[in-house]
Amino acid sequence: MTLTLHPIPNLPHVEPGDNLAVLLLRAMAAAGLALHDGDVLVVAQKIVSKAEGRFANLADVQPGPRALELARETGKDARLVELILRESEEVSRVAPNLLIVRHRLGFTSANAGIDRSNVPQPEGSQDIVLLLPQDPDASAARLRQEIIATRRVDVGVLIADSHGRPFRMGVVGVAIGVAGLPALWDRRGEQDLYGFELQHTDVAVADEIAAAAGLVMGQAAEGLPAVLVRGLRLPPTFGTAHDLVRPKDKDLYR
Amino acid sequence: MTLTLHPIPNLPHVEPGDNLAVLLLRAMAAAGLALHDGDVLVVAQKIVSKAEGRFANLADVQPGPRALELARETGKDARLVELILRESEEVSRVAPNLLIVRHRLGFTSANAGIDRSNVPQPEGSQDIVLLLPQDPDASAARLRQEIIATRRVDVGVLIADSHGRPFRMGVVGVAIGVAGLPALWDRRGEQDLYGFELQHTDVAVADEIAAAAGLVMGQAAEGLPAVLVRGLRLPPTFGTAHDLVRPKDKDLYR
Repeated sequence: MTLTLHPIPNLPHVEPGDNLAVLLLRAMAAAGLALHDGDVLVVAQKIVSKAEGRFANLADVQPGPRALELARETGKDARLVELILRESEEVSRVAPNLLIVRHRLGFTSANAGIDRSNVPQPEGSQDIVLLLPQDPDASAARLRQEIIATRRVDVGVLIADSHGRPFRMGVVGVAIGVAGLPALWDRRGEQDLYGFELQHTDVAVADEIAAAAGLVMGQAAEGLPAVLVRGLRLPPTFGTAHDLVRPKDKDLYR
Repeated sequence: MTLTLHPIPNLPHVEPGDNLAVLLLRAMAAAGLALHDGDVLVVAQKIVSKAEGRFANLADVQPGPRALELARETGKDARLVELILRESEEVSRVAPNLLIVRHRLGFTSANAGIDRSNVPQPEGSQDIVLLLPQDPDASAARLRQEIIATRRVDVGVLIADSHGRPFRMGVVGVAIGVAGLPALWDRRGEQDLYGFELQHTDVAVADEIAAAAGLVMGQAAEGLPAVLVRGLRLPPTFGTAHDLVRPKDKDLYR
């Protein structure tokens, strides 16, 4: 079966308090994109955070002693470092202009996902930053419920971000919020072409979907922060992005 | 622009010496799939290895002292461990039934990509294993040249495998061979929606394509080891899978 990924064009700039379900459904209708059962809607973290008003103004942040120390080590703005620390469980790596942390949501990423790009700034300021949604799994579930309530179609919703990773260069799309689809697909016990049982084949399908959507979203001025994915063949189980967090004591790759 | 991924149906079982370009073009023609300029053909590592005859028979392998020691630690077959060591630069992690190594090709993965699943076995044996292609970037380039020579269309070729990764659960598709498309897309210097310059946005597009293809390939008895990807918008630069290997001294995520 063919997999298709349709970017959703002409979404307006998202503002705090906007109802994303309404904006997405309106943009899809305008583009002639109807939702079908089994579709998955991939939404960039950034517009979810904007709708939820997850902005912070660095001018309002008072850095503590640990933030001041890490700011000296990294050369980063101490107020930004303070926000990163507040969003993090643990600092895993410090280097010039880089702070890799274990986010309170469990995953490991640069700067706790706090970002200034594609964030509107008041005249003369560069102090407004955007944090990740408070609970992206809950955001995905809410968006899904609103879409189901409006359109009566059973769709999945995935909130995607871009992460760097160990061992490999470049960022890739990953899932940080999942609702209405599995995050991991456990294929152990299935048989291969020759009838032998497969092993070690938990597939991170939510991350594969986020990566695929990354190819059509673009990151720059293209402004395509939502993608309609059709043709996935997934088991009828529901997971969360939390399923994708590898517990530290089981992380044999590190 | 819509991205589509068509699995290529009815590929025959691949045997050593088979010409993959011929098999793929024949299967595409039978399925009514024409190749267009800019398409990318994603091929599972397994059928490339099979065509290249990268089988090994464990019955022929004499494990050395290091393999015997690691076999005791992991509970793995010492002959398999010997093959893993021969394919590796460095052992990075040892645990029961698991050996994570830095492959001679640079990337870090379990068991150096050596696998028994979907490998035909002689009656009564389970000793035949399959190694990664000798040089997957070269395999991709060769396959691409053969397709261009036959069909006069400018396509990219990507050889995909599934890897586990640190921090996150589950395997995802990754690129281990690339020809005729970029592996990394450096988007630094581009501007965001509000005119600010983007930073840190090297995107691992080849890995995102491999992950997307993983969604349609399946891993079990489905037998869909090749996918035609259409609608990518990539810069006209060519990279290799080697570009995706993060040099150890630049690996700030570890």
